[in-house]
Amino acid sequence: MTLDALKAAVLKANLATVRNGLVKATFGNASGIDRAEGVLAIKPSGVPYDEMTPDHMVLCDLEGRVRDNRFRPSSDLETHLVLYRAFEGIGAVIHTHSTYATIMAQAQRPILPLGTTHADYFYGDIPVTRQLTSEEIETRYVAATGDVIVEAFADRDPLEVPAVLVAGHGPFVWGRDIDEAVLNATILEEVAKMAWHAQTLVPSVAPISQSLLDRHYTRKHGATATYGQN
Amino acid sequence: MTLDALKAAVLKANLATVRNGLVKATFGNASGIDRAEGVLAIKPSGVPYDEMTPDHMVLCDLEGRVRDNRFRPSSDLETHLVLYRAFEGIGAVIHTHSTYATIMAQAQRPILPLGTTHADYFYGDIPVTRQLTSEEIETRYVAATGDVIVEAFADRDPLEVPAVLVAGHGPFVWGRDIDEAVLNATILEEVAKMAWHAQTLVPSVAPISQSLLDRHYTRKHGATATYGQN
Amino acid sequence: MTLDALKAAVLKANLATVRNGLVKATFGNASGIDRAEGVLAIKPSGVPYDEMTPDHMVLCDLEGRVRDNRFRPSSDLETHLVLYRAFEGIGAVIHTHSTYATIMAQAQRPILPLGTTHADYFYGDIPVTRQLTSEEIETRYVAATGDVIVEAFADRDPLEVPAVLVAGHGPFVWGRDIDEAVLNATILEEVAKMAWHAQTLVPSVAPISQSLLDRHYTRKHGATATYGQN
Amino acid sequence: MTLDALKAAVLKANLATVRNGLVKATFGNASGIDRAEGVLAIKPSGVPYDEMTPDHMVLCDLEGRVRDNRFRPSSDLETHLVLYRAFEGIGAVIHTHSTYATIMAQAQRPILPLGTTHADYFYGDIPVTRQLTSEEIETRYVAATGDVIVEAFADRDPLEVPAVLVAGHGPFVWGRDIDEAVLNATILEEVAKMAWHAQTLVPSVAPISQSLLDRHYTRKHGATATYGQN
Repeated sequence: MTLDALKAAVLKANLATVRNGLVKATFGNASGIDRAEGVLAIKPSGVPYDEMTPDHMVLCDLEGRVRDNRFRPSSDLETHLVLYRAFEGIGAVIHTHSTYATIMAQAQRPILPLGTTHADYFYGDIPVTRQLTSEEIETRYVAATGDVIVEAFADRDPLEVPAVLVAGHGPFVWGRDIDEAVLNATILEEVAKMAWHAQTLVPSVAPISQSLLDRHYTRKHGATATYGQN
Repeated sequence: MTLDALKAAVLKANLATVRNGLVKATFGNASGIDRAEGVLAIKPSGVPYDEMTPDHMVLCDLEGRVRDNRFRPSSDLETHLVLYRAFEGIGAVIHTHSTYATIMAQAQRPILPLGTTHADYFYGDIPVTRQLTSEEIETRYVAATGDVIVEAFADRDPLEVPAVLVAGHGPFVWGRDIDEAVLNATILEEVAKMAWHAQTLVPSVAPISQSLLDRHYTRKHGATATYGQN
Repeated sequence: MTLDALKAAVLKANLATVRNGLVKATFGNASGIDRAEGVLAIKPSGVPYDEMTPDHMVLCDLEGRVRDNRFRPSSDLETHLVLYRAFEGIGAVIHTHSTYATIMAQAQRPILPLGTTHADYFYGDIPVTRQLTSEEIETRYVAATGDVIVEAFADRDPLEVPAVLVAGHGPFVWGRDIDEAVLNATILEEVAKMAWHAQTLVPSVAPISQSLLDRHYTRKHGATATYGQN
Repeated sequence: MTLDALKAAVLKANLATVRNGLVKATFGNASGIDRAEGVLAIKPSGVPYDEMTPDHMVLCDLEGRVRDNRFRPSSDLETHLVLYRAFEGIGAVIHTHSTYATIMAQAQRPILPLGTTHADYFYGDIPVTRQLTSEEIETRYVAATGDVIVEAFADRDPLEVPAVLVAGHGPFVWGRDIDEAVLNATILEEVAKMAWHAQTLVPSVAPISQSLLDRHYTRKHGATATYGQN
């Protein structure tokens, strides 16, 4: 992919989050990376969505060195960088404040795998990060947000559970490529909505069985996937 | 009905589930059967809704033998087959992940007849299946899903209660013909939404009386129906 | 108003209930009356909303004698008749299955005046009828539905509280004229939605004070109304 | 800004509240002030939104003396006047009955800062006023509504928390200018929605830490703001 194509794809992902109702005002940002070139493109800070063009997307390397200084990158850039460095298989990162995922982040409740909709996309519960300490917030807030996400994946595979709830903040979602990240962000909101409702009605509601989780997840993922026309 | 007409009607039903907000992404499938010919048409697996044409619909017989091999049928085909074989009066089957019906399936709560809206379409509570065993999931998942649905109807008439919630999964809905199945799927979501809300506010809420259930159901169904212009 | 104008206004009210999201499928009906002529117009039974013309509206007198037999009137006609006979000041009746009002009818919870939005339109709580007996349901269901509504207004003025929740069924709403009835049906759904949410969060939530109820209701109603440009 | 420009901006704000789903029927009003001229423009009383032109906006001074008598001002004018006199830094006031903010006002629950979405716009909890006394309601209702709002800000800065819930009524929101007030009213509804859901699921949910509140609020506000392209 050329860098122009990368910028166009990142713009498209940012606009898709708005169109799918995941982002209000300017709350949210998407980025994508060209691993071969070591270059990522990210949404600029505070530019209204309806004025954005591909050229507003900011290019930088994995250390955050910006290619030119026309636009300031998203204020969440450092969180994205931490994720790209730690999770080598991911090609895109999306941050939204989508309503139900954010509610679960505020309530600090992981999203349990209560149904097969969840299992088709997320292989286990979607964790909540620990809260940041005052010291982390005051000295290195944005990077520390990335760090607590990485901590939450110490014992899970970020490609199997491509989303997290940052406590008191909202979701970060990723994927192998930009389209997959947009789809994951959209499905996350739907499973968060269903989990909120199921748990409000039946607080003790139990996750589906490991067998059912395995069956649905592997149906769509991995070498033995059977879903679709290929 | 010719097979071309059947394929067109099945496509239309699939698109209606999307338009009515019952299906997101590619979660869902509808089929219809020509009982005289012993042929059914079903949605293909994983084809985006906005690209589907009547020719994508896959034709097969009641044993699942596909007429040609251009497209792979929905991965839920075997569930549909079990239902068509067990419930002889039905002409169409629809599976969705519509939000509130899926929430009730996750919470494993039957949808009680709390009001006349329910009674106009469903003659009694809409049951939840038992959970599948690990052995069923691992060896014959899709057919076993049909089997537990049939089990749940051991003591009820599938034409009087044309829907079920598969535990931890979502609803399957049917009808005498395709239009009726689409309408039932739409009404199911509305009654599921109302039941969720009524039970969250008043956990002990009681079903309507048998007299009221009888009055509303028979008003629209059976030889003595009085509703409409005919 | 000519009878043609009455039929046109009743059609418009029926369509407004659909457009405002109060009615799904064919659940619902609106009627209006010309008191001087003793003639009312009501929606026909089971005709799809998008096919209705003014000529589908059925004209009848207060005893339910239909003017011609082209179309069968709404199956709820007798309920409307009971209300027109008992509540002399009303000029229109609307029945819907709007979501939150129906939820409250299923939960059998009156809608308390929890805020000024309520007080601007409804001078006190919106009552729930008692449940019908089996004998009433089996012998004279539709008229008995009207009777239990009238019972619920033994000690309140139907023009001050122009709505009721029929237990296990849904709302009936009325007004001095058709536009007022449509507005009341729309506001009812909004206050039902807010009451459901306030009571789910805080089960003991208290109504507003009588002073505040008086202030808001009389601001918009009666000889001393001060709202608007007249 | 000329007075014509002020009237146009106030009309635009009133229409924006409708377009953003914050106002139904004619429930709501927005005003803006030209501090240099001591003149404010406010929505007229009871004029349908789709008929309003800039010339319907009513001009008056801070004592409520209307410039001409073509249209009667919003019945809430006196509340706006109290706020403009007490909160010197504000340039616009908006009153809505937006659904979730009104629900929280009915439930008399402040909106706690449960997440960073809240902290980006509101520096602390959004308070609920005390209830008005009968005497206040009967003798000087509209002005007293302003007084209890001002009371609720005895120990907080109205520019740092630019919104309040009037008990049993609904939200009043403001801002340095009209665009900021519209944005605050829109964000308020979203944070009210999220707070309602988080507290319904987890009644004991705790606010975010003071450090996180500080970090997010000061990121977008004050001399050290770092957000955006400037």
